[in-house]
Amino acid sequence: MTTLDPIPHLTRVQETAPLIHNITNFVAMNAMANVLLAIGASPAMVHAREEAGEFAGLAQALTINIGTLSPHWVDAMIEAASAAQAAGTPWVLDPVAVGATRYRRQTARQLVALSPTVIRGNASEIMALANQSSGGRGVDSTDAADSALDAALQLARQTGAVVAVTGEQDLVTDGQRLSRVEGGHPLMPRVTTLGCSLTGVVAAFIADAEDTFSATVAALACYATAGEQAGRAAKGPGSFSVAFLDALHGLEAGALAERRLEIEHV
Amino acid sequence: MTTLDPIPHLTRVQETAPLIHNITNFVAMNAMANVLLAIGASPAMVHAREEAGEFAGLAQALTINIGTLSPHWVDAMIEAASAAQAAGTPWVLDPVAVGATRYRRQTARQLVALSPTVIRGNASEIMALANQSSGGRGVDSTDAADSALDAALQLARQTGAVVAVTGEQDLVTDGQRLSRVEGGHPLMPRVTTLGCSLTGVVAAFIADAEDTFSATVAALACYATAGEQAGRAAKGPGSFSVAFLDALHGLEAGALAERRLEIEHV
Amino acid sequence: MTTLDPIPHLTRVQETAPLIHNITNFVAMNAMANVLLAIGASPAMVHAREEAGEFAGLAQALTINIGTLSPHWVDAMIEAASAAQAAGTPWVLDPVAVGATRYRRQTARQLVALSPTVIRGNASEIMALANQSSGGRGVDSTDAADSALDAALQLARQTGAVVAVTGEQDLVTDGQRLSRVEGGHPLMPRVTTLGCSLTGVVAAFIADAEDTFSATVAALACYATAGEQAGRAAKGPGSFSVAFLDALHGLEAGALAERRLEIEHV
Repeated sequence: MTTLDPIPHLTRVQETAPLIHNITNFVAMNAMANVLLAIGASPAMVHAREEAGEFAGLAQALTINIGTLSPHWVDAMIEAASAAQAAGTPWVLDPVAVGATRYRRQTARQLVALSPTVIRGNASEIMALANQSSGGRGVDSTDAADSALDAALQLARQTGAVVAVTGEQDLVTDGQRLSRVEGGHPLMPRVTTLGCSLTGVVAAFIADAEDTFSATVAALACYATAGEQAGRAAKGPGSFSVAFLDALHGLEAGALAERRLEIEHV
Repeated sequence: MTTLDPIPHLTRVQETAPLIHNITNFVAMNAMANVLLAIGASPAMVHAREEAGEFAGLAQALTINIGTLSPHWVDAMIEAASAAQAAGTPWVLDPVAVGATRYRRQTARQLVALSPTVIRGNASEIMALANQSSGGRGVDSTDAADSALDAALQLARQTGAVVAVTGEQDLVTDGQRLSRVEGGHPLMPRVTTLGCSLTGVVAAFIADAEDTFSATVAALACYATAGEQAGRAAKGPGSFSVAFLDALHGLEAGALAERRLEIEHV
Repeated sequence: MTTLDPIPHLTRVQETAPLIHNITNFVAMNAMANVLLAIGASPAMVHAREEAGEFAGLAQALTINIGTLSPHWVDAMIEAASAAQAAGTPWVLDPVAVGATRYRRQTARQLVALSPTVIRGNASEIMALANQSSGGRGVDSTDAADSALDAALQLARQTGAVVAVTGEQDLVTDGQRLSRVEGGHPLMPRVTTLGCSLTGVVAAFIADAEDTFSATVAALACYATAGEQAGRAAKGPGSFSVAFLDALHGLEAGALAERRLEIEHV
């Protein structure tokens, strides 16, 4: 068992302000841009087939989220992921509600074939993506992250991606290593698109990272720490959102110093 | 004259967390998702023709809002409303700015023909939908709800829908019964898409209700009560939005206990 | 050198509540609508080719923002700008990240040919639009506004538009007159789409103005003043957003009285 320090990862994001290209759903766009700005990254939302591939070549990392699909967007997703793959740019797949409809399952399969660097989802989504049955019905997870451990390991080994399963407790694995991230706050699932926005933060952390697995764990730890801080100030989901952006923006070494992130080999 | 208690309706939503499928406008999506999460429901925004019908079959209720139209979306709206009608799933129509353009009037006519369970709009919109003239020019109502009483009764009797006219004072009618809901706060029309979001709350309340009319009145009463509470904490529209989500999330029997909702027969 | 008083401009917007038609990007829609409501205007987001031209004829001003493009939207932008031009309705172009891709440069050229009344962008965007090189890579400006002075003058003289370059210090010119607006707050670029939303405020101010140049300067001065006020209350970008909407809504003559806006002839 080894341990990991998230602070150098956060410092790198704040100092390099990576340009993150996002093809995300309509619900998440504004919140995700604000989360990325708060953590110190530079977000851009570009989805037209006419420019998505070209723009993916300019960015330090790309995210693709299948939350609100349509054919023109699916084409752009494939073009951008292909451009990222060709350029060696890391990219993160967020398979929102992949189990809910045939269209989502089919789109997700096409995207997984384009070698995402990280796949981040809730337990239901990761299980659906690994073809394991789940009780998930929509965008909200009904499974604990731990129930998706087998699915995450299988998916990581099949695809070569780092797989992050987020929920009350988060799991991250690259198929050989496993880390669990505790923290956050019960109000987080009562604020929409905090999961989608976390996908952006993962992209910002892996943009210039030497080790994608460690950078992903660090991203989740920073998010969970900001969630804890926001929870102490919040009276409900409205004030939580506000306090969460403030906490991400003001995240400092001090708050992260006591967080021990353990890595086990599996 | 009889009276109605909103508390059992709120409790039902909080306990069943109904999955609400929304095809809504781009401006409203994030705010509406947060409002639905705050009241205890589970929102999903799914608009592609390729999956909207399939998804409508999974949800406990559907909302369709014509705020930002385009042909692909109109196709998906019709497909989802048809699927809801076929499955007996209740659905709510929100005819945003229906009087403003030919495209909106034509789309709204197609949707009204698919038997919405509830139609919720401001006075200008309900009057336009009932083919009565109005001074409405855009998305903001220029008429008091009461001026739309005749239009609401006519629309309810023609379509079989419960019609809710919201404004400074709200009206709800099913053509036989009528209820007025007071409350809210003058800052509510200064925050965008609070009306669109209310459409989602109505859907959550009618999802498993025995009586659509009563559930709609209860939804409006909860919304107005949260608005009053938020108004007491707010310094302007920014802090109002935050306090409103907190108030919806923390809504309790106590705050609703003194609210008398009277129903008259018309 | 003459001076300009922003108060009568603000009062006009608050008293006439102009209907502002916006074809803007998905990230900005909600925030822009809230900013326009807070300043006292009436926003409408209408982008379908099927209705954009018709709606542009109803509005007192139009904004077009190229932040998130697709072919159907570009058609609607051209139709709406053409309708505005034909009707003599003022319109504002926001050339987001115009330098980033071929598709953006080409779309912006088509729109500039339709005689925007005002062009508002950051330094990188205005330089790219005037065919001057820039280090801009995405939506965030990497240049100080002053570095775009030559480009702004050239663009204003070529197109007949008032050109506003916004950043830490803002510049406004119509090719003959020049004004600089100080103020705002360092957290403003850490909140997404505040620039896009400012484009809407400019539209509200020029809607019924006798002099577009003065109205644009007044809009920027009101925005900067609200930014300063919000900055005093904010702990980070989350609380800044909330305080900024409150400040815009509560903006009064008192806060603006000490602001001297100087106009020089160039």
